[in-house]
Amino acid sequence: MKTYLECIPCFLIQALRAGRLARLKDEAIYDMLCELGGRIKEIPMDSPPPLTAIGVYELINKHVGSDDPFKGVKEESTKAALKLYPKLKKDIENSDDPLGLALRLAIVGNVIDFGAHEQFDLEKEIEEILHQPFGRWEEKEFREELSKADWVLYLGDNAGETVFDRLFIETIDKPVTYVVRGGPIINDATLEDAKLAGIDKVAKVISSGFKAPGTIIEKSSEEFKKLFYSAPLIISKGQGNFETLSDVDANIFFLLKTKCPVVARHLGTKVGDMVLCKVSNL
Amino acid sequence: MKTYLECIPCFLIQALRAGRLARLKDEAIYDMLCELGGRIKEIPMDSPPPLTAIGVYELINKHVGSDDPFKGVKEESTKAALKLYPKLKKDIENSDDPLGLALRLAIVGNVIDFGAHEQFDLEKEIEEILHQPFGRWEEKEFREELSKADWVLYLGDNAGETVFDRLFIETIDKPVTYVVRGGPIINDATLEDAKLAGIDKVAKVISSGFKAPGTIIEKSSEEFKKLFYSAPLIISKGQGNFETLSDVDANIFFLLKTKCPVVARHLGTKVGDMVLCKVSNL
Repeated sequence: MKTYLECIPCFLIQALRAGRLARLKDEAIYDMLCELGGRIKEIPMDSPPPLTAIGVYELINKHVGSDDPFKGVKEESTKAALKLYPKLKKDIENSDDPLGLALRLAIVGNVIDFGAHEQFDLEKEIEEILHQPFGRWEEKEFREELSKADWVLYLGDNAGETVFDRLFIETIDKPVTYVVRGGPIINDATLEDAKLAGIDKVAKVISSGFKAPGTIIEKSSEEFKKLFYSAPLIISKGQGNFETLSDVDANIFFLLKTKCPVVARHLGTKVGDMVLCKVSNL
Repeated sequence: MKTYLECIPCFLIQALRAGRLARLKDEAIYDMLCELGGRIKEIPMDSPPPLTAIGVYELINKHVGSDDPFKGVKEESTKAALKLYPKLKKDIENSDDPLGLALRLAIVGNVIDFGAHEQFDLEKEIEEILHQPFGRWEEKEFREELSKADWVLYLGDNAGETVFDRLFIETIDKPVTYVVRGGPIINDATLEDAKLAGIDKVAKVISSGFKAPGTIIEKSSEEFKKLFYSAPLIISKGQGNFETLSDVDANIFFLLKTKCPVVARHLGTKVGDMVLCKVSNL
């Protein structure tokens, strides 16, 4: 997916949100927005937005004075999600349709902002999300592909969400290779975050080899590329991975919540809709 | 209300939206966003956003090559609203509570995007909005103040909405002075737009003397200032007037739909809520 005009103000919104999350003072956020505004003309409009977002988050790191300003936020998210793990694990085991529930929970992990809630509220929110209707939900096709695949490449997204990915991986009876970002960017999961969530106990965890809030194949490691092009089934979590892989010819199923009008337009859904969709059906 | 950090990306969103509405090509909108981004550092953060928006809309005019790029859009909106006028007039006359209905319709006028719908859809949308709950709705206090006032100063907002203001003015049995912008800015109503809506048949129409998408008292004409400070009751329509008058000591009732999180926070409502609220209750 290329960068649309709508993405330009959105980069400023992301910088502002990230600055707040990193507890930058208003004056520093203002300086950052001025600097970012002056650099709009450097944005390559033919690249997917997550590639541009790298520069945006480097700018944030510079203003915060840290290479990983969301380290604490990520740890808190993972720990909050891990507290929910035992109950959700039992729910799946006791379900009439463990795979169906685990699939829905995997998307719940993409929806929730773990930092913003107490455990009680999180449980309530999970229940609510599980009962929301879906925008595109190609579950039948997904189940068929999954049953045929002898292993799965799973592209992770945020820390915290990782715990829900783990529940899903534990439920499908398949070998999984779980891919994390090549380094810390926003609250996206790295090797360290995946380990804290216990993914390494249920899957082989590898880094994409490139630090972006999405999956840029041509910039990724040879190891990743080999896996990507040989995988019988790829599960891609979240909007960043969608934005970078929506034009790629591979057996990808996207599992995400649509968070902006540009992506919603691409998918033919509304903003806020939850989606399970095969790339070749786009 | 001062300018918040959240307003900075929003200026870019407004420029983008206005560029689209004025049918600018994507390349021209991109150039405009680059120029605006480079000028973020000129934004006076202690001024209300509509004062800054003047510069944003001047930039749009420059790129469109017109002093009034929304002239056509405004005319279409007013004409679409005038088609609804006879039916709504009858609805008010036949209502058990004409003032209550006219008040709700006045806010409906602030909510609707006339350009985007056919007449049939507009009638349906009006019905839906009339049945939505309100965020803050100080109707009892408003009715008391209105019954005591011997005349009303009514601060208009957008073209099209003016027709709904006219219905309200016809319903309250009071002399009204209706204020429009000092010149064309976005789709805000000017003298010409108010006349097309027939406001001049039911009220004295004056210009504020200043061209901004809000009411900047210190920049307005002496005639306006005199009226403003002597008015027993002021009805202020829309978010732009709220942003510029929320700190002013006068007998103002705001009638608006909250369209952004900053204003919603000020009002203690949610984005999208409809509000009738006295300035001294803020």
